[in-house]
Amino acid sequence: MDCIFCDIINGKSEAEILYEDENIISFLDIRPLNYGHTLVVPKKHYDNFLSLTSTELNYLINGLQTISRAVEKSVNADGFNIVVNSGKAAGQTVFHFHFHIIPRFTNDFSFSPNFKKYSNGSMKEFADKIRIELNTRRDSTDG
Amino acid sequence: MDCIFCDIINGKSEAEILYEDENIISFLDIRPLNYGHTLVVPKKHYDNFLSLTSTELNYLINGLQTISRAVEKSVNADGFNIVVNSGKAAGQTVFHFHFHIIPRFTNDFSFSPNFKKYSNGSMKEFADKIRIELNTRRDSTDG
Repeated sequence: MDCIFCDIINGKSEAEILYEDENIISFLDIRPLNYGHTLVVPKKHYDNFLSLTSTELNYLINGLQTISRAVEKSVNADGFNIVVNSGKAAGQTVFHFHFHIIPRFTNDFSFSPNFKKYSNGSMKEFADKIRIELNTRRDSTDG
Repeated sequence: MDCIFCDIINGKSEAEILYEDENIISFLDIRPLNYGHTLVVPKKHYDNFLSLTSTELNYLINGLQTISRAVEKSVNADGFNIVVNSGKAAGQTVFHFHFHIIPRFTNDFSFSPNFKKYSNGSMKEFADKIRIELNTRRDSTDG
């Protein structure tokens, strides 16, 4: 399968690699929202967030914290965003799971979609749908 | 300390709670980017992503995956974003750490800040700064 991140991991494509261990790799995004925009990636190929194993999640989240701290400090950022795009509709373009770390500066830009409002009673309806799904999942795990 | 999320956790404020266990709680964001926009929150108060312990990170990331799956399925979304805003400059408004899960639909909206370009050589310079920071941190941990 053709995967640019697997190519980077296997040394077949170049990247500005920031960190690497047995399980994860981190390198600069070539299309940064701010300089220092960084990706944190599992070395094993997983298409998206939902396909990651629990072990992999734990490696990634701990690496993500360490690397976020370093990114923020190194560019003297005022904060940072962590973003996951899961699925094409969510803006995912490389289908090898990755976290984005985006260093942020006061008044640099805004992610500006419009907020929606729940009409009367609809908030509970949406909550019920999700609760049902979560209960179903727990039931099916129990059974 | 005045914290709206602590109030929700302690039952002093209302929320559409979707999931709750010993360590984490999840409820609907009252200002949704799409209906079903969900927050995943540690019950202990941590100001931001960098202050979370490793144990807490592991609880959160596993809960985040389970709840993301349920959110996506329950509203028949085409994908979802996970977002962390760390610091005021990054859009953090409640200083009790939380993950956002934002269900996404094909062509619903775009997070549209402009991409930057690295000028000649500057990509390596930024990478060097972050690598130095990561090495420093590892050194100081070792020592």
